[in-house]
Amino acid sequence: MEKRVERLHRIAAATPGVISLGGGLPSDALFPRGPLGRAFVRAMREPRASALQYAWPEGRAELREWIAERLRARGAEVGADEVIVTSGAQQAIALAAQLAFARGDEVGVDGESYPAALDLFRTRGGRLRVGWNDGVRAFYAMPAIGNPHSRPMSEEARTALLARRIHVIEDDAYAALRFDGAVPRPLLAQARDRVWHVGSFSKTLCPGLRVGWLVPPPAWRERALELKHATDLQASSLGQTVLALFLAGDDFDARLARARRFYRARAARLVRAVRRHLPNWRFAEPEGGFALFLESDEPGDDLALLETATRHGVSFDPGRIFRPDGRVAPLGLRLCFSNVGAAELDEAPRRLARAWDEYRREAHAPVLRGMTAP
Amino acid sequence: MEKRVERLHRIAAATPGVISLGGGLPSDALFPRGPLGRAFVRAMREPRASALQYAWPEGRAELREWIAERLRARGAEVGADEVIVTSGAQQAIALAAQLAFARGDEVGVDGESYPAALDLFRTRGGRLRVGWNDGVRAFYAMPAIGNPHSRPMSEEARTALLARRIHVIEDDAYAALRFDGAVPRPLLAQARDRVWHVGSFSKTLCPGLRVGWLVPPPAWRERALELKHATDLQASSLGQTVLALFLAGDDFDARLARARRFYRARAARLVRAVRRHLPNWRFAEPEGGFALFLESDEPGDDLALLETATRHGVSFDPGRIFRPDGRVAPLGLRLCFSNVGAAELDEAPRRLARAWDEYRREAHAPVLRGMTAP
Repeated sequence: MEKRVERLHRIAAATPGVISLGGGLPSDALFPRGPLGRAFVRAMREPRASALQYAWPEGRAELREWIAERLRARGAEVGADEVIVTSGAQQAIALAAQLAFARGDEVGVDGESYPAALDLFRTRGGRLRVGWNDGVRAFYAMPAIGNPHSRPMSEEARTALLARRIHVIEDDAYAALRFDGAVPRPLLAQARDRVWHVGSFSKTLCPGLRVGWLVPPPAWRERALELKHATDLQASSLGQTVLALFLAGDDFDARLARARRFYRARAARLVRAVRRHLPNWRFAEPEGGFALFLESDEPGDDLALLETATRHGVSFDPGRIFRPDGRVAPLGLRLCFSNVGAAELDEAPRRLARAWDEYRREAHAPVLRGMTAP
Repeated sequence: MEKRVERLHRIAAATPGVISLGGGLPSDALFPRGPLGRAFVRAMREPRASALQYAWPEGRAELREWIAERLRARGAEVGADEVIVTSGAQQAIALAAQLAFARGDEVGVDGESYPAALDLFRTRGGRLRVGWNDGVRAFYAMPAIGNPHSRPMSEEARTALLARRIHVIEDDAYAALRFDGAVPRPLLAQARDRVWHVGSFSKTLCPGLRVGWLVPPPAWRERALELKHATDLQASSLGQTVLALFLAGDDFDARLARARRFYRARAARLVRAVRRHLPNWRFAEPEGGFALFLESDEPGDDLALLETATRHGVSFDPGRIFRPDGRVAPLGLRLCFSNVGAAELDEAPRRLARAWDEYRREAHAPVLRGMTAP
């Protein structure tokens, strides 16, 4: 299944003129190329060029202090020594997953969740469950803003989750990109002893540096750091150094405010166009993040629809990849507004509506037959 | 044990005036800062700044082609599609380790080997054995130039290893840094179906980019790539882009020739100074790489000696960390000549000789008692 999705994504990416609403990429229009370039030049002038040399596994000190300070401002008592800089948030989730549960354990997730985390938990031998019922050993949460629904966890759900005394992997990647500008208190602040807090610069700044972080429960810090070292020695010295020099001269809060305005406007534009062209699809209005998640009660196969849509010049992320059991019904599509221009945000739902019409007109069988080829 | 070693290393690194012969760092004098800076500036001017965006998990195409081409020139039939760019060689070893053996399996290594690989295999539940006797499921080899002995594997040993039809993790990190300039045929060329070939830019160019590679056996390529994606999505876009642009304009063979001359001269200098000041220690003369491995038949504790040495202004890597069973006898020390200036290469063995004299004069007992503090 995963291979078919990947194949279709690669076809869509390689087809000129296809508007891609898939992937969850931040907007390259927001990348601070100039300031990062200046930070790089300064890094190359450092006496021993630490940006190019090996470094300690826990990561650069100024960066850990910067991260800890922002967590403290949100109510979590975290010192710089408790932060481990990772090769992106994905590695932070992977380290947490390796320590917070064992092969065969039940791992709780939302009904729809971040596909690369689901794949990872499967790889680690976790048995995926929806929710945090008895038997679940660890829960993967995106409390501030979820993916793909782009909504926060309710206060009641947070309380109920924390009442279960299990490991929580808190993925905070979109927290600073809530459209209302409120950056909620992390779960970390409420259950320091069992929350594995995961953060990233990938959504707020740019993903190419591959710099994220993990704040493990204090009792697990040593083991997490040993595992980090065994996994890849350290996060990129280059990425960390450029980032630390960049942050020292940047007004990051002003940058976040601009990013929120930018993504809020794109979200509103996509919402309008979807309501106009795809009025029978339901979705919750995003409160942050990068995407809408559309659902329909009409029968259909999301991969077959993706293939039709690509021919009509638009692509999306098929709903099944967000579901722990990979189920197709109800038919679901994630549409990302984050890295698509305004005119394309108007046009893409129009194309998708045409694809949907064609898909429904055709019998599903022949389309599916075509899909079973390797 | 590992914690005590780390603590001593950090103390040595933080003590001004200590000459560090530990760590295995490449010389920062060889880092091509200017050309890398120019590559970065060009990367920032790319239309969509791919250096800052997400990328495919297998890595950048030009880079994979560059790697495959150099492997083909050494007799291994490898296509660009068979190469996976990794977050340094350590991640490549980690991916191989996760697929080539299971928890509880016996993993063969040399009598002294690369500590971070040993730690990794332990983390993955491998039971370490010296050699490739019956029962060993996978062997970790550095055939071109080993670490810490800086010597190639003999032709007989290569043949004997390949006759055993087991997985081989071939760590090729130092292959291009043989002092004689001969770049041997990789084991990959002889047993494509079971060799996991691991390479890196960390020793030949600089480690800070965190770019290495894995060429898995073809039957394992899909699973290795899925695991790579689950582990950290992809290697740094920034590192890969800067590297690809840099390599396109660089005479890499000329660069390697300079590096070989540079390290050969440093090795010769350290060898001379060790023979003069530490005449009773034995070692094999390095044929490449970054280090000498000294051994003595006199009794002693390498960590206690390291503590004494640090007070005398010199540090090294204690022999036990290179040994699969962590044994201390025979007393061993790795001395790296790679990132130490010429005058310091003369001075460090003199200081080490003084430390060794003091260490032997003192009773060992009080020193060891002092070492058991956390």
